[in-house]
Amino acid sequence: MTESISFGSDNHSGVHPTILMAINEANRGHHRAYGADAITDQARQLFKEIFGSQAETFFVFNGTAANTLAVQATCKSYEAVVVCDLAHLNTDECGAPEFIGGHKIISFTSPHQDGKLEPGILETLDVNPLNPHRVLPRLLSLTQATELGTIYSPVELQALCEVAHRRNMLVHMDGARLANAAAHLGCELRDLTTEVGIDVLSFGGTKNGLLCAEALVFLTPGLSEGFEFIRKQSMQLASKMRFLSCQFLPYLGDKLWRVNALKANQAAQYLRGRLGEIPGVGFPLLTQANEVFVRAPLPLQTFLMDYGKAYLWDQGLVRLVCSFDSTAEHVDAMMKAWFISWA
Amino acid sequence: MTESISFGSDNHSGVHPTILMAINEANRGHHRAYGADAITDQARQLFKEIFGSQAETFFVFNGTAANTLAVQATCKSYEAVVVCDLAHLNTDECGAPEFIGGHKIISFTSPHQDGKLEPGILETLDVNPLNPHRVLPRLLSLTQATELGTIYSPVELQALCEVAHRRNMLVHMDGARLANAAAHLGCELRDLTTEVGIDVLSFGGTKNGLLCAEALVFLTPGLSEGFEFIRKQSMQLASKMRFLSCQFLPYLGDKLWRVNALKANQAAQYLRGRLGEIPGVGFPLLTQANEVFVRAPLPLQTFLMDYGKAYLWDQGLVRLVCSFDSTAEHVDAMMKAWFISWA
Amino acid sequence: MTESISFGSDNHSGVHPTILMAINEANRGHHRAYGADAITDQARQLFKEIFGSQAETFFVFNGTAANTLAVQATCKSYEAVVVCDLAHLNTDECGAPEFIGGHKIISFTSPHQDGKLEPGILETLDVNPLNPHRVLPRLLSLTQATELGTIYSPVELQALCEVAHRRNMLVHMDGARLANAAAHLGCELRDLTTEVGIDVLSFGGTKNGLLCAEALVFLTPGLSEGFEFIRKQSMQLASKMRFLSCQFLPYLGDKLWRVNALKANQAAQYLRGRLGEIPGVGFPLLTQANEVFVRAPLPLQTFLMDYGKAYLWDQGLVRLVCSFDSTAEHVDAMMKAWFISWA
Amino acid sequence: MTESISFGSDNHSGVHPTILMAINEANRGHHRAYGADAITDQARQLFKEIFGSQAETFFVFNGTAANTLAVQATCKSYEAVVVCDLAHLNTDECGAPEFIGGHKIISFTSPHQDGKLEPGILETLDVNPLNPHRVLPRLLSLTQATELGTIYSPVELQALCEVAHRRNMLVHMDGARLANAAAHLGCELRDLTTEVGIDVLSFGGTKNGLLCAEALVFLTPGLSEGFEFIRKQSMQLASKMRFLSCQFLPYLGDKLWRVNALKANQAAQYLRGRLGEIPGVGFPLLTQANEVFVRAPLPLQTFLMDYGKAYLWDQGLVRLVCSFDSTAEHVDAMMKAWFISWA
Repeated sequence: MTESISFGSDNHSGVHPTILMAINEANRGHHRAYGADAITDQARQLFKEIFGSQAETFFVFNGTAANTLAVQATCKSYEAVVVCDLAHLNTDECGAPEFIGGHKIISFTSPHQDGKLEPGILETLDVNPLNPHRVLPRLLSLTQATELGTIYSPVELQALCEVAHRRNMLVHMDGARLANAAAHLGCELRDLTTEVGIDVLSFGGTKNGLLCAEALVFLTPGLSEGFEFIRKQSMQLASKMRFLSCQFLPYLGDKLWRVNALKANQAAQYLRGRLGEIPGVGFPLLTQANEVFVRAPLPLQTFLMDYGKAYLWDQGLVRLVCSFDSTAEHVDAMMKAWFISWA
Repeated sequence: MTESISFGSDNHSGVHPTILMAINEANRGHHRAYGADAITDQARQLFKEIFGSQAETFFVFNGTAANTLAVQATCKSYEAVVVCDLAHLNTDECGAPEFIGGHKIISFTSPHQDGKLEPGILETLDVNPLNPHRVLPRLLSLTQATELGTIYSPVELQALCEVAHRRNMLVHMDGARLANAAAHLGCELRDLTTEVGIDVLSFGGTKNGLLCAEALVFLTPGLSEGFEFIRKQSMQLASKMRFLSCQFLPYLGDKLWRVNALKANQAAQYLRGRLGEIPGVGFPLLTQANEVFVRAPLPLQTFLMDYGKAYLWDQGLVRLVCSFDSTAEHVDAMMKAWFISWA
Repeated sequence: MTESISFGSDNHSGVHPTILMAINEANRGHHRAYGADAITDQARQLFKEIFGSQAETFFVFNGTAANTLAVQATCKSYEAVVVCDLAHLNTDECGAPEFIGGHKIISFTSPHQDGKLEPGILETLDVNPLNPHRVLPRLLSLTQATELGTIYSPVELQALCEVAHRRNMLVHMDGARLANAAAHLGCELRDLTTEVGIDVLSFGGTKNGLLCAEALVFLTPGLSEGFEFIRKQSMQLASKMRFLSCQFLPYLGDKLWRVNALKANQAAQYLRGRLGEIPGVGFPLLTQANEVFVRAPLPLQTFLMDYGKAYLWDQGLVRLVCSFDSTAEHVDAMMKAWFISWA
Repeated sequence: MTESISFGSDNHSGVHPTILMAINEANRGHHRAYGADAITDQARQLFKEIFGSQAETFFVFNGTAANTLAVQATCKSYEAVVVCDLAHLNTDECGAPEFIGGHKIISFTSPHQDGKLEPGILETLDVNPLNPHRVLPRLLSLTQATELGTIYSPVELQALCEVAHRRNMLVHMDGARLANAAAHLGCELRDLTTEVGIDVLSFGGTKNGLLCAEALVFLTPGLSEGFEFIRKQSMQLASKMRFLSCQFLPYLGDKLWRVNALKANQAAQYLRGRLGEIPGVGFPLLTQANEVFVRAPLPLQTFLMDYGKAYLWDQGLVRLVCSFDSTAEHVDAMMKAWFISWA
């Protein structure tokens, strides 16, 4: 292992070589700016092939923007977003949804402590268009895979979308790790989005090997009206757009998303297996995507945070994340270092 | 000319090969995310060397963000920005400063119709901290080079900064084409910013060969307080930050900015010279940076917009812009096409 | 004259006795809060009788709110308001429209320097739903009477509304002094609003004898959708609403608006006549409503500002404003004081 | 009982006669607008006498504004407000704090289910000026009396302020019913605010007999800087300000606040006593201010909502509120009606 490796975050890894090649490829000649180029056309068309012909796709720079602008595009200022209290949108965007569009976030605790919401929660919501004292719940935002590395099944998603729609709400998916979820379930991206009733999707790229590129995909017709203006006004319109859009050609077209996500998921399974060999280690959560949450004795905890650059999570858990380029060798090297340090 | 070439905008060109090499270089191993990496440290340090040790630099994705967040960082909601009516900030950010921070923009017409403001304008401003009916002018924003391709001299900048400071205002420079200005004047970046009294600088990269990378540089101590939060909340914090910051190592460190800007400026001079050969053509503005504004007979106007992808500007002028990779051959090819079409 | 009198502003006068009686009347027993009371129903119904059955009326506390929320109700964040540069909305709301909804204001200079806009101005606007770099002009806001005390005729208003609608814009009237305009023209409120195509009206009360009460009237069906939420979220929902709404019963129902406005207008005419007796005095503007703009020799100017509490306006003019309770006696007393001081 | 009476809300009552007299009194002659009048001076001075000489007072139209602008004045956009989940600021302002200033609200459940927070909660907060991913908690907002009619003692308030200040936070008091709390405790307003460390106070008036008048009082020097601009920009600057400020002359100066609050509190005690005579009735909460929360058999519950216009609260409780003009006769009349209906 000549290069440093981290299990701290899939944001610690870099860009997949195929993506850099695509960028090199796009770097020929001059092209119209701001998305009026053939590469961007092609990439947006590709999203239609994958997610359905009604899909309208807009590329943005990061996940904070994809999530926040999904809210801005679908909610009036007095309409609210409903999330799990652990949702990135709620805890890790520095209040961007409140700041950008003035939207209130209504959060619920995950009933089973696994980062997932259940339809029953939506039934308790006060959705009353005649009561101007309270914000109107309008957008349910679900994270797939969740912040705790668990995954909603298509059936669970469908049930949530059904109740949301019945209550006059739309459903957003924060799909920063949607690729990991689909890779785990062995299904298509569409099976977890278009087919189950998701209205708008933040389709993550950066965590899975892209270079500052995410896609906001409107799956329900009409929702993207005026979004060109919203994106520009929100400082997310890239002038040399082709360098974002070109990345999605191999990512979607050649299913690099699945290749990368599978590798990360498999490394996480392997990491969990190896950590399980250490006495006193526990795993209170399923490892379904590329994240392992481990309850470890203090020395191991310290080691994982030091060597593995892992983060201490809530309730004394340590979070380890594998990336598209994490390998069994990296895991073995860390385990070896642990056993040496302990000897 | 096997590759398409455009004189429509420096946003039509791509990324300089040296920049792609820097990105490849940065793409080794894992690094802390969100700017806590060594490459970003190094790049921020480089800005201190160039602009002075008090310079605090933050990388963002595009120029809209650099400009808008300069306002957000320096103005309270009831403080206003003062600009030339032609300023990008005023006309081409889809109202981002108003939207993001709620700031009013007060615009003035350029006295000499050359895109530049004069100190006298600031004297007429009502800056009254006891009158809450009117917004308080707080930030003067100057574009260098201007939207009309002209350039403020250090003396002009100093005079503007002096009056602004005397009137309790700060000065922002929209330096989307600062490189072109410094290349034209044969001076250092610092001579047009730190030395003349600029408080905060949007230092452009993308138009001059970078890949979605701009720098917001606070030159006056204290102004950047809390800006880490503002950047995150405004959706401009890159997770894999090193891919933005690494670009500034050759750009600043090896003065790629000057190399690229000089080429673009020279191409613009050559273009102006060749256009001047055509009867009936006029140039109401100086060509100091990489932009040529030409008054042309209708057939030529149409040709320049069609072949050269140039934009029709105000008052019947056609704007042509040269990029870091625009060459005399490209200009000659266009001229040849013109003469052929005309023959 | 035992009580102090001012010609500084119609905001210097107080509340008409009839209005205080209405408030006393409303102060019986308990009523549902937040507008769900019979008095408010009655007042809203009265607006339908006066302005047409489609009129939807919402009471707010002041003119800043009426104007700003008219923008918020009709414009998306990337849509802009078009105004005369002198408009209160542009210069005297401390940037409220920008702050509250993030809206850009596009201002034009009055062609004839009389505070009025002309239809031709709207023809020059760039209204392009395909260009996300620029805000979309959406709302034309006209002030009646204007900030310079002049009055748009119904024909002028109709022409402006026609062009605005043709260009896919709505028209707002800042009617802080609409009563004075209608009194001057001898027409009904409806003739200057519903009948000429105004879409949304700020109907002023406070300046004409009400106690912190203005009405925002949506004249075009559909525009008020969700406005109950907007008003509450914008901090303009009165809990004891009946104390705002009750004022409009005599104001509209008994045409107190006209009685009061006529008195103010007549006092202004009388004031102008008396001032005209003084040598060296000039009136560059028509006095159509309750404002007199006077060019006066320096000693008189100082006297008017001192004794009359008048404000120095642009271009060396002094503005004097008459209120519903300004009388010929008040004017004569001021004139007498002037002649004494001068003697 | 010739006049209708409601136990639905103290917003259902009207204006105290003394207040209407003060308004009549203020309605003499002309006065400078926007607060530059002698009455407003006097009222602001009175607040200094009551709350301490450092108190800076600004009158606004309603409680939503007082609370929301307290946040806007003290928090940067990325700083958050910490509240009890039941707080009016959190549930009943239609998201105004998020909308107006973009501020996130962090809510906690009341540990003892009585609407009060405890200092321990503040210890758990992540206040990290080096972590831009999370908003920075900056303002603790406490409601006195609480939304459940309970009252913080001076000792409890002091303890909360102490921890908040230690954690670099300020403390706001939503004092919509502060008068009721002070009346209950038999202490001065100052004992619950200035003396215990409150930094900024929303001092309620409307619920206790004023006409659309609340006061925002900055108790800690420096916090009100620029607030004149914030108030104007937020549409809360009354032009004829004296009609707000004059109400506080008798309210504070003659302690009308205490007279009114005592009456409301006493009526609530009497109401609770009478309700307690009915079999099956329970009171899970203390009645300390002017609110009674009652658990009642379904027929009584229906009656209270119908006859008494009371609201159904959380968990099947019915909320009844007494006003400054609620009397034992009103209560007895309701009880009589209940027994008749039941007989």
